[in-house]
Amino acid sequence: MTLMRVLAISGSLRESSSNTSLLRALVTLAPADTTVHFSAPLDSLPFFNSDVEEARLPQSVQAWRQDVGLADAIVISSPEYAHGVSGVLKNALDWLVGGVEINGKPVSVLNARPQASVAHGALVETLRVMGARVVDQTAVPLTGRKLDHSGIAADPELAALLQAVLSTLRQSTEDAAGGPA
Amino acid sequence: MTLMRVLAISGSLRESSSNTSLLRALVTLAPADTTVHFSAPLDSLPFFNSDVEEARLPQSVQAWRQDVGLADAIVISSPEYAHGVSGVLKNALDWLVGGVEINGKPVSVLNARPQASVAHGALVETLRVMGARVVDQTAVPLTGRKLDHSGIAADPELAALLQAVLSTLRQSTEDAAGGPA
Repeated sequence: MTLMRVLAISGSLRESSSNTSLLRALVTLAPADTTVHFSAPLDSLPFFNSDVEEARLPQSVQAWRQDVGLADAIVISSPEYAHGVSGVLKNALDWLVGGVEINGKPVSVLNARPQASVAHGALVETLRVMGARVVDQTAVPLTGRKLDHSGIAADPELAALLQAVLSTLRQSTEDAAGGPA
Repeated sequence: MTLMRVLAISGSLRESSSNTSLLRALVTLAPADTTVHFSAPLDSLPFFNSDVEEARLPQSVQAWRQDVGLADAIVISSPEYAHGVSGVLKNALDWLVGGVEINGKPVSVLNARPQASVAHGALVETLRVMGARVVDQTAVPLTGRKLDHSGIAADPELAALLQAVLSTLRQSTEDAAGGPA
């Protein structure tokens, strides 16, 4: 049984973001062979500028690329703002374009508000163009339910959805490695 | 003849960005009844966070909203990163969603690389959802031509395209005001 390291990325900076709560619930629900840890907050990165990228990669960007590179799999949960991906998440992805860290990496994209599908589709498109393997897109309907991460983890239906996300990622990493470890 | 104030917004922070060069050429080409001025660099804004928006709007965001609010019309030129709108531009737009400044405002969206159309479409969609009037989308093919802003302004074909952009915006502001001033 190999440990699977999952990197959790929230596209929202709000303290009580339902996207962040989903990911926190994933931390709680992870089985013994899986660790889920959060990326540094995405606002610790500067705004993408290819002049800066060419001159000298900022420390925070190096750390961000390393976080992505060391992960076996990634889960992203992000809000939709005005039918688009949140600027803060897109900016973080912009810094990965010049690297190789996300290449071939299994990614699961959660959607806490399934009726908002435009940004979700745009995010999946961007990830694919960047070379990520989007192996799973799971709608986790939280709209209208005021649940924090423990409430989510305690809800049998939602917990089952999130456990399936981890199990799909596990399968994908094993497929890529040529079979179970 | 009323003065038309046009706000120019570049989605790239690169010093020699072709999108910024296009907008600089627009400044040069503006007729006497039109001023084109740049927004403050978009990386002077913080990352969008609705907790911050609700608690106290940062000074830079207030200035950004005011810039948009005072403009008669807006021109945006932005690169496409991984089939998406640049994070820095999307973040700036995210800060406008909670305000009214862009509502009904005529906007022209330039595309310096017409073969990159996914982000362009996504940007137009976001602007429309935000209540802006996208009155013009102009492709200004710069790919493979190493032109700075004076080179662009000196090229008769490109200059004509950019002058038409300003003239369409002028027409749109007059339509909105119920006829020529």
